[in-house]
Amino acid sequence: MKKISMKGNDVVTTQELSTDEIEAILKLAFEMKKDRYADKWAELLKRKTFIMFFYNPSLRTRQSFEAAATELGGHAQFIEPKAMRLRGLKKGNIEVAGETIHDAAKVMARYAVGIGIRILETSVDNYGDGNKILREYAKHMDIPVINMADDIYHPCQGLADVMGMRMHNNNLPTRGKTLLQTWAKGALARSYCSVHESLLLNSRLGLNIKLAYPDDNYDLPDDIIEQVRKNCKENKTKFELIKGDPEKGYTEADYVYSRNWFGKDFYQIGKEAEIKRATDIKYKDWICTEEKMKKANKDCKFIHPMPVDEDSEVTREVNQGPRSIILDIAENRLHVQKAIMAMTIAGLEMGL
Amino acid sequence: MKKISMKGNDVVTTQELSTDEIEAILKLAFEMKKDRYADKWAELLKRKTFIMFFYNPSLRTRQSFEAAATELGGHAQFIEPKAMRLRGLKKGNIEVAGETIHDAAKVMARYAVGIGIRILETSVDNYGDGNKILREYAKHMDIPVINMADDIYHPCQGLADVMGMRMHNNNLPTRGKTLLQTWAKGALARSYCSVHESLLLNSRLGLNIKLAYPDDNYDLPDDIIEQVRKNCKENKTKFELIKGDPEKGYTEADYVYSRNWFGKDFYQIGKEAEIKRATDIKYKDWICTEEKMKKANKDCKFIHPMPVDEDSEVTREVNQGPRSIILDIAENRLHVQKAIMAMTIAGLEMGL
Amino acid sequence: MKKISMKGNDVVTTQELSTDEIEAILKLAFEMKKDRYADKWAELLKRKTFIMFFYNPSLRTRQSFEAAATELGGHAQFIEPKAMRLRGLKKGNIEVAGETIHDAAKVMARYAVGIGIRILETSVDNYGDGNKILREYAKHMDIPVINMADDIYHPCQGLADVMGMRMHNNNLPTRGKTLLQTWAKGALARSYCSVHESLLLNSRLGLNIKLAYPDDNYDLPDDIIEQVRKNCKENKTKFELIKGDPEKGYTEADYVYSRNWFGKDFYQIGKEAEIKRATDIKYKDWICTEEKMKKANKDCKFIHPMPVDEDSEVTREVNQGPRSIILDIAENRLHVQKAIMAMTIAGLEMGL
Repeated sequence: MKKISMKGNDVVTTQELSTDEIEAILKLAFEMKKDRYADKWAELLKRKTFIMFFYNPSLRTRQSFEAAATELGGHAQFIEPKAMRLRGLKKGNIEVAGETIHDAAKVMARYAVGIGIRILETSVDNYGDGNKILREYAKHMDIPVINMADDIYHPCQGLADVMGMRMHNNNLPTRGKTLLQTWAKGALARSYCSVHESLLLNSRLGLNIKLAYPDDNYDLPDDIIEQVRKNCKENKTKFELIKGDPEKGYTEADYVYSRNWFGKDFYQIGKEAEIKRATDIKYKDWICTEEKMKKANKDCKFIHPMPVDEDSEVTREVNQGPRSIILDIAENRLHVQKAIMAMTIAGLEMGL
Repeated sequence: MKKISMKGNDVVTTQELSTDEIEAILKLAFEMKKDRYADKWAELLKRKTFIMFFYNPSLRTRQSFEAAATELGGHAQFIEPKAMRLRGLKKGNIEVAGETIHDAAKVMARYAVGIGIRILETSVDNYGDGNKILREYAKHMDIPVINMADDIYHPCQGLADVMGMRMHNNNLPTRGKTLLQTWAKGALARSYCSVHESLLLNSRLGLNIKLAYPDDNYDLPDDIIEQVRKNCKENKTKFELIKGDPEKGYTEADYVYSRNWFGKDFYQIGKEAEIKRATDIKYKDWICTEEKMKKANKDCKFIHPMPVDEDSEVTREVNQGPRSIILDIAENRLHVQKAIMAMTIAGLEMGL
Repeated sequence: MKKISMKGNDVVTTQELSTDEIEAILKLAFEMKKDRYADKWAELLKRKTFIMFFYNPSLRTRQSFEAAATELGGHAQFIEPKAMRLRGLKKGNIEVAGETIHDAAKVMARYAVGIGIRILETSVDNYGDGNKILREYAKHMDIPVINMADDIYHPCQGLADVMGMRMHNNNLPTRGKTLLQTWAKGALARSYCSVHESLLLNSRLGLNIKLAYPDDNYDLPDDIIEQVRKNCKENKTKFELIKGDPEKGYTEADYVYSRNWFGKDFYQIGKEAEIKRATDIKYKDWICTEEKMKKANKDCKFIHPMPVDEDSEVTREVNQGPRSIILDIAENRLHVQKAIMAMTIAGLEMGL
């Protein structure tokens, strides 16, 4: 038996965790789910403070992290940097006065034993800047930093997805299964991070990946695609990129993850233009329907990180029907986050 | 001895509770008040999450529910739906994209063991829509939903009122006493819910009811009046409706509840027009004064759910004087809410 | 051994505490720091509510008070009066309707065992009004009121400063040392309270005080200066006022506290005009530099309540260098606040 320790570690993306670390987190998350309110978990963060630091608000992330801290015996503080006098991060928002990230990070590490940071595309100017800022905080802090979603990665969502897929696979690993990750239309101009993390993590864990989107407007960043290809190659699985066909990818899929994401020029054109484009009639078939699901493997499941944009990303029939595992995945956010906090902050070790 | 169980039940209005359930909640609330910080209560929600879901903000409701969860060993999360991408509830605010109530409800029930919802007239288009939305959440949730005030009902306030009335009646039931519920002038365009609940609950518990307001502008909804009449009839008590006389109702009153409410056309004319009307000189006498109180029964008490609009709804002399039981009532919010949470969420049973 | 009890007391400024009370708080804060998460502290506020009442938001104050309540076994509620229907405090913001401070105070005292209030210059019309309002709350409340910074005083900051100064003085009192309190340029139009409290408390504790600022624009209020002079006189220490020389004060200083504050006409001219003035080129030398620090005593320390406005108030070299004790001071906010809460709310007595 191997002992896996993550004490003091940051969690920025699952791509930077070892597969042992991923398995350790998942194993602990399943144990915590089975015995959710057991007293033993309550010692892990007893009366300690976890800071939820939200450049971008998010209700589900907040609810699940806040409940996680409570269930571990601690307390999560909800903090919005906009209430701070921090030096500006964004063009047109340049504060010459104000506190540096260095100072803000160092002080928060005095009050808290761990911190979650959420910073998406709308808080920065360029793709990747959110992730850079998150890493800058991590550099100055001697407490674990947990990524609560940045403009590239979303490790907690990816792990919750995988936990849900296993729950609906007799609690077995999904190696050898096929995931269709498909773009969907809609007016929400959604972030990349959940989609990236799903592609990176599932390719890592031995699934065949099909990635479908309508046209060059919706290419994902090159480096992500390259990493997913590489992950598949290492696992000897298939990676298929399907452009322009909203149906083809369903064949042989065991999981369909249908979700909108914004175009690669989003940082330049902005939200309004993106929404106009993504709701154009030409994309009308980019929605997950029961009809399409029937072309997939028997028992093919529908995945989504929620909130779902019903009638755009998926029909109600699928979303609220027996194929949908989205509620279990949403609940799993809590369990994987508790597991991550327990291992990185409290130093709980897991045997594999 | 009867065992009263409310495990898993919603609490939308006291009108939908049995009188046994009402008495059980009050009995437990008195016990909890006597021994507020006892360890035994702290097992009831130990490390569990209660969501406070505020379509409309409210400080007192928040403070009392948040303290209630803490004192029961749990944690209350403060959540505002405006931070969510929920589909629009209101005309002129139509979101075609966004999450359905079905999905939002189902997920919150995964993180929390109970939820309080507050949704008033300003969050909806028509009278009663707030209550409908609250019931829609309840339909989709398998955890207790507690009404923290909607556009019709306010059960926790009603129960806190009754508890205060009993405290100042040697802890005895108030059956046979007389309540004057009177409209008051002022610039706050206040909601119906506290007034409705007071009328419904006190008529249910055997009080004679006098309802006074200036003119047709301030008629309460017909179905509420009808229910109050019916409650009185079943209890063989008197129901008297007094229009146009701000003094008459004080005669023989044991409790005077003086509070502003908006007119029946509020949903159409809006807040500004309502305030203009309610502050008109012609309504100048619609205020509770010590002079009027002297016409009531000896020891007549002043009731108000707070915040009080002093000098409009009541004079300072009465509000801060010995007749006023408003602070005890405000404190009772905490105790009745703890009792409701204990019975519905934790399943604590009460013997009557 | 003397037993110091502060049960039920308010803490508005250290100037109104006895030196025994100051020493008792500091002694307890050091003990709490040594054994931060010990179970014994958790009985002090067990499942009790502390209200953080923020007329003006502040992240650090919130983080440290919220963590303090958690570590004492209780829960801190974050409340903003702007969400309440309180009668207006400020000209041009006159609410004729709404709740009185009397009522708001009385109700909060029913839910909570203690309250912190923060109210700065931007929430009121005249210098000192914030402090008056805080004292009005205290008058109506039978629970301890702790000043979380008003427009005159900031006792928790002052005590945290002193605790940091002692930590870097072999845990010994700083009697006989010299503090330079100097104005600094910058665009933040900062409040007086931290500066006042530092002057009042350090002069009280037997330090020599040098107070430096550029010209009449930045005179501090007369009554504060008079009190500091008096404190020095009682301690037979030196008080030196240095106008117009940004360097002279460094000589013989053991501690340099360099921070911007707004001019005495700030309440009249407003923020924009103040910032324009304070960033004028003529004040360019009003910054703490390593070069200046070299003129001070060996091991001279840099003090600041944070957030620091780097490059205006102090250079990065000093702020992030070995002279800087700002992070320890920031952490000490937590420890002194826990100590104050323990003594005033929980009634913990300290032997001196």
